[in-house]
Amino acid sequence: MRATVMFEAGDVRIVNVPDATLVEPTDAVVRVTRACICGSDLWPYRGLERTEAGRPMGHEAIGVVEAVGAEVRTLRVGALVVMPFAYSDGACAFCHEGLHTACIHGGFFGNQAVGGAQAEAIRVPWADGTLFPLPVGPDDALMPSLLTLSDVMGTGHHAAVSARVAPGKTVAVVGDGAVGLCGVLAARRLGAERILILGRHPDRLALAREFGATDQVTERGDEAVQRVRELTGGMGVHSVLECVGHGESMDTAVRIARPGGAVGRVGVPQGESIPGSQPAFFGNISVSGGPAPVRAYLEELLPDVLEGRIQPGRVFDRAVGLDGVPDGYRAMDRREAIKVMVEFPS
Amino acid sequence: MRATVMFEAGDVRIVNVPDATLVEPTDAVVRVTRACICGSDLWPYRGLERTEAGRPMGHEAIGVVEAVGAEVRTLRVGALVVMPFAYSDGACAFCHEGLHTACIHGGFFGNQAVGGAQAEAIRVPWADGTLFPLPVGPDDALMPSLLTLSDVMGTGHHAAVSARVAPGKTVAVVGDGAVGLCGVLAARRLGAERILILGRHPDRLALAREFGATDQVTERGDEAVQRVRELTGGMGVHSVLECVGHGESMDTAVRIARPGGAVGRVGVPQGESIPGSQPAFFGNISVSGGPAPVRAYLEELLPDVLEGRIQPGRVFDRAVGLDGVPDGYRAMDRREAIKVMVEFPS
Repeated sequence: MRATVMFEAGDVRIVNVPDATLVEPTDAVVRVTRACICGSDLWPYRGLERTEAGRPMGHEAIGVVEAVGAEVRTLRVGALVVMPFAYSDGACAFCHEGLHTACIHGGFFGNQAVGGAQAEAIRVPWADGTLFPLPVGPDDALMPSLLTLSDVMGTGHHAAVSARVAPGKTVAVVGDGAVGLCGVLAARRLGAERILILGRHPDRLALAREFGATDQVTERGDEAVQRVRELTGGMGVHSVLECVGHGESMDTAVRIARPGGAVGRVGVPQGESIPGSQPAFFGNISVSGGPAPVRAYLEELLPDVLEGRIQPGRVFDRAVGLDGVPDGYRAMDRREAIKVMVEFPS
Repeated sequence: MRATVMFEAGDVRIVNVPDATLVEPTDAVVRVTRACICGSDLWPYRGLERTEAGRPMGHEAIGVVEAVGAEVRTLRVGALVVMPFAYSDGACAFCHEGLHTACIHGGFFGNQAVGGAQAEAIRVPWADGTLFPLPVGPDDALMPSLLTLSDVMGTGHHAAVSARVAPGKTVAVVGDGAVGLCGVLAARRLGAERILILGRHPDRLALAREFGATDQVTERGDEAVQRVRELTGGMGVHSVLECVGHGESMDTAVRIARPGGAVGRVGVPQGESIPGSQPAFFGNISVSGGPAPVRAYLEELLPDVLEGRIQPGRVFDRAVGLDGVPDGYRAMDRREAIKVMVEFPS
């Protein structure tokens, strides 16, 4: 089958690889109908060291179950499913607590062990626990929004939950990428009264406003902190969604939080320590977040997508076929596209 | 009047200073009956640079109201009060939220602006909002435990609240100083099922066990992490109370937390960043805490002290008069005393 492999920074290719097959009796093989490129795929795109085998890419997908192992009980061949970016057995203590990204037997897609989702098919471990059947057909008009439930919308929601967004709160979203935009949507959905978006790209800020942002802050660093203070009567915001992962953005996130406030971070941290220890301490500001348990959030978010109350699929502003994936990486890296969807012919 | 002033690291003296007086109409002057030395006083004791004026020391006290300003409404001269380590107006948005340590008009004791509590008397700004009247006499046998409500017990409680201690949880307390010991007491009070104390001093560990610790971990660093994992089936603990403030202890705190767990930190951080960004992120571990709003906790904790359900005053293992304060610093610095109480003749 054909799959996306990154051999080193900037070198993404579509290559032939062995077909995805069942390995464990709890596996399924899913034929991918939609996938996408994640902002986190840009970290290796900018820094991966060269290897012969390369790294299979992609961890977000919708697809059709093609084969199931002998111990798969709840899924049938032919079912349309959404695949969260992490697999999980659905049975361990952490899965029961709703923290599927800490599953004892779990792991992440997009590596040599399980393969990637920017491919014709993918092996899914712990298929019963991982995959979520969709009650629509594969060409449904809602498909882009449903696809976001595999990662980006669930991740924006996790940032909002970690930042304790609630009705009446003032919220800031640091980062205007696809996750930040979904964070805006999640914050509005949870009842935020004001939503400040921190970003610099006019097209993204425009979408943020449509998603519910009430104010935009285009400054950075100290100037951004100053601007947020001006906009909040000197107080800062109750909730900050950190959707980038850089030290600078995290530092800004802590410094714009109101005393007693919360930072929910979902941008994969690129540094070894969290900046702002002292302002966070003296402000009693909590720092939470991590890989979103999107599997846990699917049941909560799905009705809002199916009934059209949220349209997170609008973060996709470009669609390519599998052969167009390398161009998709380039476009996202150059900020020419917010998020690229990969469509497979049915 | 006589007061404790630190002129530089290691140089603590009892000196004559101008009497504490009313400055603002919302002030009270409190004649101190009991004060104490705080673990956080040891930071300047080890690092303060020399100044001519020095730093007035002490921020924990019980005393008798000696004078009140014209706008003080709820306090009468002669009332016995406990003084939280921070003053607060009791009226701002943060005070209403229970975060008195972020009071817009608030501040901390133990500096040139307001003076310190290791002194015969102290000026207390925002007396109505700050001071808490006690329903006992100044020589009540409960006085040591009541004195801990000015800081150390409220701080241990804040660590436990920030670390989301709840019935049935497994908890670790990093640090066996007076705050850590009060953290053990707070965790047990909140229903923790298991409480691991991380420390190295046999006398303190013995008191921790009496306060409710079920396990002790005397290792440090990687070995402590390993030991906590062994004690928790490889999982880590739900809640970690960080009661030291060093980078190493914070790093340990993050690494012994279970995925989805919480670190509540109350040790004043000595570094500029929080270590363990990536383990905290990938484990979805929250880091919260800061200066404890002990004023908010007084109403909750006071009945348990008055009715003898908790005895946090047991952290005091030495008592001195004002002249003995410099010796008290030395004893705490050398770990010869856990916490030193300062008694004033009535």
